Amino acid sequence: MTELSEATQQVHALAAKAKESARTLRLATTASKNAMLHSIADELVANMDTILAANETDMTREREGGMSDSLLDRLQLTTERLEGIADAVREVATLPDPVGEIVGGRTLANGLRLINKRVPMGVIGMIYEARPNVTVDAAVLALKAGNAVLLRGGSAALESNKVLVETIRAGVVKAGYPADLVATVDDYGRDGSVALMKARGLVDLVIPRGGAGLIQTVIEQATVPTIETGVGNCHVYIDRDADLDSAHNIALNAKTHRPGVCNAAETLLVHRDVAAELLPRLGASLIAAGVTIHGDDATREFVEGAVVATDEDWETEYLSLDLAVKVVDSAEEAIAHILTYSTGHTEAIVSNNVSAVNLFTSTVDSAVVMVNASTRFTDGGQFGLGAEIGISTQKLHARGPMALQELTTTTWIVQGDGHVRN
Amino acid sequence: MTELSEATQQVHALAAKAKESARTLRLATTASKNAMLHSIADELVANMDTILAANETDMTREREGGMSDSLLDRLQLTTERLEGIADAVREVATLPDPVGEIVGGRTLANGLRLINKRVPMGVIGMIYEARPNVTVDAAVLALKAGNAVLLRGGSAALESNKVLVETIRAGVVKAGYPADLVATVDDYGRDGSVALMKARGLVDLVIPRGGAGLIQTVIEQATVPTIETGVGNCHVYIDRDADLDSAHNIALNAKTHRPGVCNAAETLLVHRDVAAELLPRLGASLIAAGVTIHGDDATREFVEGAVVATDEDWETEYLSLDLAVKVVDSAEEAIAHILTYSTGHTEAIVSNNVSAVNLFTSTVDSAVVMVNASTRFTDGGQFGLGAEIGISTQKLHARGPMALQELTTTTWIVQGDGHVRN
Repeated sequence: MTELSEATQQVHALAAKAKESARTLRLATTASKNAMLHSIADELVANMDTILAANETDMTREREGGMSDSLLDRLQLTTERLEGIADAVREVATLPDPVGEIVGGRTLANGLRLINKRVPMGVIGMIYEARPNVTVDAAVLALKAGNAVLLRGGSAALESNKVLVETIRAGVVKAGYPADLVATVDDYGRDGSVALMKARGLVDLVIPRGGAGLIQTVIEQATVPTIETGVGNCHVYIDRDADLDSAHNIALNAKTHRPGVCNAAETLLVHRDVAAELLPRLGASLIAAGVTIHGDDATREFVEGAVVATDEDWETEYLSLDLAVKVVDSAEEAIAHILTYSTGHTEAIVSNNVSAVNLFTSTVDSAVVMVNASTRFTDGGQFGLGAEIGISTQKLHARGPMALQELTTTTWIVQGDGHVRN
Repeated sequence: MTELSEATQQVHALAAKAKESARTLRLATTASKNAMLHSIADELVANMDTILAANETDMTREREGGMSDSLLDRLQLTTERLEGIADAVREVATLPDPVGEIVGGRTLANGLRLINKRVPMGVIGMIYEARPNVTVDAAVLALKAGNAVLLRGGSAALESNKVLVETIRAGVVKAGYPADLVATVDDYGRDGSVALMKARGLVDLVIPRGGAGLIQTVIEQATVPTIETGVGNCHVYIDRDADLDSAHNIALNAKTHRPGVCNAAETLLVHRDVAAELLPRLGASLIAAGVTIHGDDATREFVEGAVVATDEDWETEYLSLDLAVKVVDSAEEAIAHILTYSTGHTEAIVSNNVSAVNLFTSTVDSAVVMVNASTRFTDGGQFGLGAEIGISTQKLHARGPMALQELTTTTWIVQGDGHVRN
């Protein structure tokens, strides 16, 4: 074995302890795990002053460092927000436990009895950015699904996350479980983060949740299996046979309801036959809502104040009040554009034409395809899956909103009566 | 973009063509895909002389290069074996098509209709070693599940694989599909192999199938999602409450039935209370079958001719007529040993004690846990899953024998009536 850095050794030690602890949780009943979640919620409320003080340290440092108001708002914790976080923990306790579900099985011709059963994943690594509520969300979802969790948060929330992890661990211990089920690797910096991604054999899954840069780093460096999440260059296509009122409302909602999130629309594709009727009105509404329209030549004929779209616009996830708009000659051209530029998150078609809808839903290769609905609905809570840990844009294991079930795996239990193979 | 090597550019070009071709297959009916499989089987039979001549070139080169007889046997194709391969292709045509299955769905309170549907993965990369039959197996399983496939075989089978891929492509084209659905990257050497693992955005999944070295390389280098397959340090634990005739037969079968494959047993753990009665008899049977026993001190007391086991033996996947044997004081000790050394493939317990069986099946963290049955049953064909493309030892996406379903993903189709999010 090559010599390991100090940070790597520390992270491996934490991961080994997490793996050992996870064995106790693997055998826990749902009732016992739920009691642990309530214990964590109680600790969050009891420890509120300490958490808020730590958060104030983060806020002061970042404010002085010039963090934007919108990012500061995401970083900030308040009494009300902490109560909301504790309520969300209690909410996870009410969700069905995926562990123990029998997902398949059969008796073979030779009498062997096969059972395919859902079991915890083991140890989950979570690497995420500024919002401190993710620390609590990720920990309790992992625990409910029977897993230990190693957390790596953003440096802006360092003090908040430190106290939050201590609080969660106190709740875990008070419920009779080992503290090592939850740990942070924040103390070990960038090296610790890389060590977490490479702790194969100790960590079973790493989930990055954050911007494109973070996700790219994890994909390139990780040897532990990962799930790519959340980069959404989402498209809305308005077909020739669209109801134009619906088209107007869906496009406006998909772009402006919450422009900074991954399920917001970034490109609008409009069929040429309805462009003259739809675009002047929709363009005006978008611009009135503060949107900058990056239009192709045809779009700019219909939308006053649109700026010129370049190739770069088609591939950009703005996460802001910007929208690329292109006029297309057919559903096929819209689909070809989407297949070229989409990140595989969510695409929507607005159409009342059965053929166009069938073509779109069967050809577009994304986690979610919306028909006559806003892209904003791609969300674990909206889908009725309970709390979500991220939205997978890869095809392996999980696709779209990921909830408790996606934090488990399965195992085959095969029962015989002295069976040997001939 | 950094400058790409010639090999990388060539592999990317093949992958782009595969991706484009896969779109046609995504919309294909099951009947049409099955007709393509029959066309491939027919071509394999029609092209038999050319395939055998190419295989003879490989055989001659490898024989002169000093390849062992057992590996030469795995490399060799004969008329009979090729007919068997063609029959296996027709067999895949009879299997149920996983694509199009509705795996879930619901209508939300707001009226949105959710459907979760099984769809092809897209483009699958397969990196494997010497046996040329894998070329055909992997291609037809991928095609049946609606995917394009890029193949990278071992250099020993270079000429055989080249002609096999040409033959498959001819069958694909005669069935009216684009040849680019199947391609080999063998022409581009090691660089081509690495390019395949890193062709993110063009390739959706890479499956390595071969020895530990190949799998390690893929895990370390790949940025495309991968599934780790087939490394099996499998254990058999004989409990205090075992039926000793069953124990004898299961241990003997698990080790000697086919020692070179991943589901063969590599370590035997025997409860101390039955060691004196079982081990002399079982040891004699194993040695009579040609097995070298690597025993701990207690084992060597009972088995004449056993050699000394070192720590290395506990972690070795021998893939040969060698077996590590250890006497343990309890089921707990056996489980702790397994949790330390197992590769997560298959472990067996032989016991008639309900508590011991429950503890073992709920605590051992492997893809398959056998109760009173040989580890040799971990096999897609044995499990009734049809042809298998590998046995996953990771927890993400697939665990245990992987068949057609594991070569698909799912997508959410959400239908609304102009729904926007408030």
